[in-house]
Amino acid sequence: MVESRLVGPVRIVGVGLLGTSVGLGLRNRGIETILADASPTNLSIAIDYGAGRAARDGDQPQLIVVCVPPDVTAEIVARELDAYPNAIVTDVASVKLAPLAELRERGADVSRYIGSHPMAGRERGGPLSGRADLFIGRPWVVAAHGGISYQQANAIDDLILDLGAVLIEMSPEDHDRGVALVSHVPQVISTILGRQLANASNSALNLAGQGVRDMTRLAASDADLWVQILGANAEPVRDILIAYRDDLDRFIDALADPTAPGARRKVAEEMIGGNAGVARLPGKHGQDRQFSSMIVMIDDTPGQLARLLHEIGEIGVNLEDLRLEHSPGAEIGLVEISVLPEVVARLTDELAARGWRIAG
Amino acid sequence: MVESRLVGPVRIVGVGLLGTSVGLGLRNRGIETILADASPTNLSIAIDYGAGRAARDGDQPQLIVVCVPPDVTAEIVARELDAYPNAIVTDVASVKLAPLAELRERGADVSRYIGSHPMAGRERGGPLSGRADLFIGRPWVVAAHGGISYQQANAIDDLILDLGAVLIEMSPEDHDRGVALVSHVPQVISTILGRQLANASNSALNLAGQGVRDMTRLAASDADLWVQILGANAEPVRDILIAYRDDLDRFIDALADPTAPGARRKVAEEMIGGNAGVARLPGKHGQDRQFSSMIVMIDDTPGQLARLLHEIGEIGVNLEDLRLEHSPGAEIGLVEISVLPEVVARLTDELAARGWRIAG
Repeated sequence: MVESRLVGPVRIVGVGLLGTSVGLGLRNRGIETILADASPTNLSIAIDYGAGRAARDGDQPQLIVVCVPPDVTAEIVARELDAYPNAIVTDVASVKLAPLAELRERGADVSRYIGSHPMAGRERGGPLSGRADLFIGRPWVVAAHGGISYQQANAIDDLILDLGAVLIEMSPEDHDRGVALVSHVPQVISTILGRQLANASNSALNLAGQGVRDMTRLAASDADLWVQILGANAEPVRDILIAYRDDLDRFIDALADPTAPGARRKVAEEMIGGNAGVARLPGKHGQDRQFSSMIVMIDDTPGQLARLLHEIGEIGVNLEDLRLEHSPGAEIGLVEISVLPEVVARLTDELAARGWRIAG
Repeated sequence: MVESRLVGPVRIVGVGLLGTSVGLGLRNRGIETILADASPTNLSIAIDYGAGRAARDGDQPQLIVVCVPPDVTAEIVARELDAYPNAIVTDVASVKLAPLAELRERGADVSRYIGSHPMAGRERGGPLSGRADLFIGRPWVVAAHGGISYQQANAIDDLILDLGAVLIEMSPEDHDRGVALVSHVPQVISTILGRQLANASNSALNLAGQGVRDMTRLAASDADLWVQILGANAEPVRDILIAYRDDLDRFIDALADPTAPGARRKVAEEMIGGNAGVARLPGKHGQDRQFSSMIVMIDDTPGQLARLLHEIGEIGVNLEDLRLEHSPGAEIGLVEISVLPEVVARLTDELAARGWRIAG
């Protein structure tokens, strides 16, 4: 375990999924955590779960993490800044401009506040959904503003690194435009697709496969929370939805007469544009570094896979990712391995020389 | 193994993902399969993979399954009906009205043809993506038409049941409207979202999490194939896209002035409508054996993973699937392993006793 840079204690206000996960992660690093929540039930669950202890008179938190819904974030942050005049305060709300503006309107001491946003979540909420490893490897935005010193902001950087997340510094404006694209618009798009299922026939719904399930998973999200998020980030979301509608109109036009000259080309251009856009998403490592993958065929036994990995280690290549395809019908398994592009040729040659079958 | 009702041999024309999977699944049931493909390379891969044998003069297939792209489906079905006058012919194209209409135009003997459509697929194509269990528990539509007798259609029912799929009988019209909703429109919606990523800033893309990845997974689909599918099912797809656009317009209007009276209520109604729609999707089909997964934390080195797999082998547990999450921000990797539910408790205990950290 690496020595934590945070001294603590860290006070966590709101023990839903995110607050409880912050508590569990920090407790794992040996940092004292203090929990508070408007719901006594949730508070006692989070304490029992090991996320921290209840507040006591005289607590002197170094850092306060406000993990409450966006609508009340600024109010609670202002209250905490008042109540703990020596503490740095951050929040984890999905929008960053609106809380900062509201804090300034309220005359809060923003020289001790800096907003942040971990890009991590689960479909379930509540303290029992919390996980100490929720933030590991996930982007966590720090929304820098001019009113806080570099030194003050350090405690928040330490929090993020202690929880294993990848710190990304952005302005509140860039953050809000970024999440409009990669989070808020996908939510709206999924919701609208979900609505189209409302009046569908049962026989149509019986045909549903993984595609429509993936596309409507977000549509099951909490309506109250999303009314708050979309309301607080309306302009960037609306701008992208309007661009989305333009593309949708082109599809609708092209399909009006699919045998007309040029109609197929129009659909093809849209499809290829989608291919190109999605290819820009970085690998799941949150970095732009792309890995190459190759497929090795193995006899379908666990011993074979262990031997393959052992030999890849002998060859001196680091695996970046691995996926096992195990098909009961075939007598072979397929192992998809991801490695740095520069080692693919050498690894292919060396594995082939050792008798492994490389499928692609 | 349940006795197959199909006698065979079954001739499979086109050995991409679906054709190869049909071959592997039928071979698993002991049924003779004959493979054909325009690509000699793909054909030899599928034969090596165990999906069947090459065609020979004098073959007398009982059933022919045409697994080629939609644009050429009717042409190949007509050719097979001519070449094998005693065989029943089916196809697996994603649209069902257009091939039937084209066959009738061509004057083909549709008394031996009945279209079908397995609701199963993967992101990757080609023979090596084939899996014997691809169809298990998945819906497989038989698109009944009046020109084929009940008895003739029996061979296709047997094929579907032998492959473990769930037979659903629908008219070609109902099929095409159903897949427009649960397959073709989700593809279009995903493609358009993918297009919005084309001009995004790198800093915005670095914030991408699981939500936008799930929502744009389909956007990576093969453009040529989808131009064919959407062109062949244009009217039902377009009708739903127009309804989709109406909902999108309501969102865009509500977000124009999110603090106006009623704006929040409008967004809430859309969100709740999405909740209600997605709740109508039926649960996953029951025949698919479900595996349980557990997460083991390892030091992020290749040697560790090989040791883990070696020890799982020693414990005597078969891995059904394995996924490695390798996070550069953390010093640990997460290995998600899938095993039969009945061995989870024992494997957890034995791995913990050997010093492995089980994360969940």
